[in-house]
Amino acid sequence: MNYRMVFGLTGKIITTEAALLLLPAIIALYFGETKSLFAYLIAAAIAAVIGLFLVLCFKAKNKEIYAGEGFVSVALSWIFLSIFGCFGFMISGDIPNFFDAFFETVSGFTTTGASILTDVESVSKSNLFWRSFTHWIGGMGILVFVMAIIPSNAKGTMHAMRAEMPGPIIGKLVPRVSDTAKILYLIYMVLTGVEIVLLYVGGMPLFESVVHSFGTAGTGGFSVKNDGLASYSPYSQWVITVFMLIFGVNFNIYYLLLIKRIRAVLQSIELWFYIVVVLLATTAITVNIFSIYGNLSESLRQSAFQVASIMTTTGFSTTDFNLWPGLSKTILLVLMFLGGCAGSTAGGIKVSRAVLLLKLIARELRRLLHPRSVSHVRFEGKKVEEETLQNVSVYFAIYMVCVVAVLLLISFEPFDLETTLSSTVACFNNVGPGFAGVGPASNYSAYSSFSKAVLSFAMLLGRLEIFPLIIALSPATWSRKRR
Amino acid sequence: MNYRMVFGLTGKIITTEAALLLLPAIIALYFGETKSLFAYLIAAAIAAVIGLFLVLCFKAKNKEIYAGEGFVSVALSWIFLSIFGCFGFMISGDIPNFFDAFFETVSGFTTTGASILTDVESVSKSNLFWRSFTHWIGGMGILVFVMAIIPSNAKGTMHAMRAEMPGPIIGKLVPRVSDTAKILYLIYMVLTGVEIVLLYVGGMPLFESVVHSFGTAGTGGFSVKNDGLASYSPYSQWVITVFMLIFGVNFNIYYLLLIKRIRAVLQSIELWFYIVVVLLATTAITVNIFSIYGNLSESLRQSAFQVASIMTTTGFSTTDFNLWPGLSKTILLVLMFLGGCAGSTAGGIKVSRAVLLLKLIARELRRLLHPRSVSHVRFEGKKVEEETLQNVSVYFAIYMVCVVAVLLLISFEPFDLETTLSSTVACFNNVGPGFAGVGPASNYSAYSSFSKAVLSFAMLLGRLEIFPLIIALSPATWSRKRR
Repeated sequence: MNYRMVFGLTGKIITTEAALLLLPAIIALYFGETKSLFAYLIAAAIAAVIGLFLVLCFKAKNKEIYAGEGFVSVALSWIFLSIFGCFGFMISGDIPNFFDAFFETVSGFTTTGASILTDVESVSKSNLFWRSFTHWIGGMGILVFVMAIIPSNAKGTMHAMRAEMPGPIIGKLVPRVSDTAKILYLIYMVLTGVEIVLLYVGGMPLFESVVHSFGTAGTGGFSVKNDGLASYSPYSQWVITVFMLIFGVNFNIYYLLLIKRIRAVLQSIELWFYIVVVLLATTAITVNIFSIYGNLSESLRQSAFQVASIMTTTGFSTTDFNLWPGLSKTILLVLMFLGGCAGSTAGGIKVSRAVLLLKLIARELRRLLHPRSVSHVRFEGKKVEEETLQNVSVYFAIYMVCVVAVLLLISFEPFDLETTLSSTVACFNNVGPGFAGVGPASNYSAYSSFSKAVLSFAMLLGRLEIFPLIIALSPATWSRKRR
Repeated sequence: MNYRMVFGLTGKIITTEAALLLLPAIIALYFGETKSLFAYLIAAAIAAVIGLFLVLCFKAKNKEIYAGEGFVSVALSWIFLSIFGCFGFMISGDIPNFFDAFFETVSGFTTTGASILTDVESVSKSNLFWRSFTHWIGGMGILVFVMAIIPSNAKGTMHAMRAEMPGPIIGKLVPRVSDTAKILYLIYMVLTGVEIVLLYVGGMPLFESVVHSFGTAGTGGFSVKNDGLASYSPYSQWVITVFMLIFGVNFNIYYLLLIKRIRAVLQSIELWFYIVVVLLATTAITVNIFSIYGNLSESLRQSAFQVASIMTTTGFSTTDFNLWPGLSKTILLVLMFLGGCAGSTAGGIKVSRAVLLLKLIARELRRLLHPRSVSHVRFEGKKVEEETLQNVSVYFAIYMVCVVAVLLLISFEPFDLETTLSSTVACFNNVGPGFAGVGPASNYSAYSSFSKAVLSFAMLLGRLEIFPLIIALSPATWSRKRR
């Protein structure tokens, strides 16, 4: 393990966070929130001191990053990011308890959107801004951000990027990793900007347009109202629906559109699968909830909004879908697992993994009938490496093992099975709200500190797709000699 | 597809069932149940006529069974077996509705033990006998039974046996398949006999000793009392606990014990894993439910009984575990998925698959750290073929896909998520009782005919481990030319 490289990179990330923490300080200054202003200045100072200390102490001679270093850097960065990110909440007094503040920050960075706040409207504007801004940063990834802004001559940064980007197959858009990162963040910024404008034009106050656009872009789901997005106009709700779906798509698609490779876009099986699932789920739920709302346009809007919100693992809500009939809830539960496309800001298993798993199943059925046949799996026009296929099927297994482990650990709580199960699923897949006790009309405040810590870890596992954290926490990783 | 071979074999199975249907007729004669006597004579006659017709019409010239024929024969046999097995219930008037009778019969043969009967004590003795006897036959497998008793000169019968026996790796105990089948059934009969004697000696009436032993041996779970096994003595409950665990073990273990290969038994990682899970789960639940029962001996007995019952997917109950605290219910839910050992009569994913999945996960973590490393997975002292590993991980994926499909299909019912989810899991894994609306104090009678049909199919999918049914139902299987 190249410790110097790992800690140096982690230091860079924390220093970057120190700079980002000045943004909520500016917001506090603007809105005259003295307590929060000091809180964020102190938080920024702490992060700056420790970040720079790490950067200066761990100057790597060997600038090469191997797979192991990539995984460990990403895992450490995300853990420290969440720790240093929660001091603002604590010092300002809005979320005084560490476990609560950590939960809220992890929930922000991992774009989960699960909250322990019972009255979000009483929280300071700067805290609300930071909460939603963590969504925006966490959505595309902090390492990707650092790579985009800080010039680096390290080799193998692709390993770090691969560890942070969701999905089974990560490709560079352009030969240089830092250029890829720049392109991704540029697309991300432009799309976020367009959403802010569209919401603002539709009558939503600027501050709310900004934070909700952050929440949409990162597929996070933190809102600033106690009733979520229920009180906004149908126009705003439709804009957010469409943008949630947009941010759930693989960003490669937008790059392909930019360079006018329309044909490649149309051939993306992941995109088609995603669209078909959204349409089918929306239709089924619209019919299923029609009797509740009584008219087609509202049923369709509620259904489309909730399908988009849950499938992209955003977690915004316009209604208490916990009160919907069984079929609708089951569909939403399945969508929580499925999640959005790989290479998007969404969580879950990812559509491409699901497609590859279905293809693997089809191949296995063929192989059982014709034991001597050999066949390859093709995806998006290319033959998929056997190693990738193995990784996908094993990922699915480790994913379920982790879900079960989290489920057992939070079962000590005196809640019913629906609450326990859905909070596990909603946190692990970075959705946010679940059903029953953690439904859209409730929150996670009733959980014990232990369970909040477990669920925070579950959110990180889900966001980083398990392997980085497991590798970082495995003693074998640390005991090995430097290669 | 060798149609003649497939239909001929199916015919043999149905004819065998006709003979077996005479057993409840004898019971009906003994207890003087006229209606049931006629019902079972008629049911036997129908099965005999159709079975013999198939045998006579489809005399195969080519006696070879390939993998495809094996899967299709097994799938067809189990479907027909369940259809012809439900006429006794219908004609006798105890379960007049076809979907109910079919559900109950499938539940019997697949050793699920889920029931639609609201008052099992009002059912005739001969029907109760047949219900439990289907557990016994289904547990070890009807094709295995036929292979054990009917001499056959067909080649490739291993394919049929492999399709019917649960687990990822099926080995022949002895070179001839029919001898393997004989040895398995001999062990099965002796163990069942011992249990009957032990229960009878402990004061349980003979008839009840017999049916409960059938239910234990097949890991089925049909009982003859409305309160399950709650009213029997602690002695009887402990005997059944131990025997449920015995029947959840791979039968190869007993063969190894018979030929005194003790060392091989001790080296079975599946056996150790099974024992450790049982001990851990029992301990955790004993502590968790201690406050309900107030004394250690009862808490331990209830806990051990329920862990054994759920993990071996038997489904007997001595108490309403639906009222237990969250942790206990979550543990039971996880055990439902896990199931017993491969090569036992238990359902679920199987311990050996879980062990192989964990080994695959460990290998993937190693591979991510050392991308160029090559390592093999070893199980029970042998290197596991890559094909088997692929099959295991893909099986897990198709398993979850099927669970989700069943879940969605039965979500039209007006039940809560806990009921819908647990009935899917309990039927698919051949457990029987679930939680909430299908808990041990309830039953499946509230479901619609459509849902009963879906759940019946789920039980068959679970018992035959998915692939045979999917292959049999796939048009591609039938359209291919005979090889």
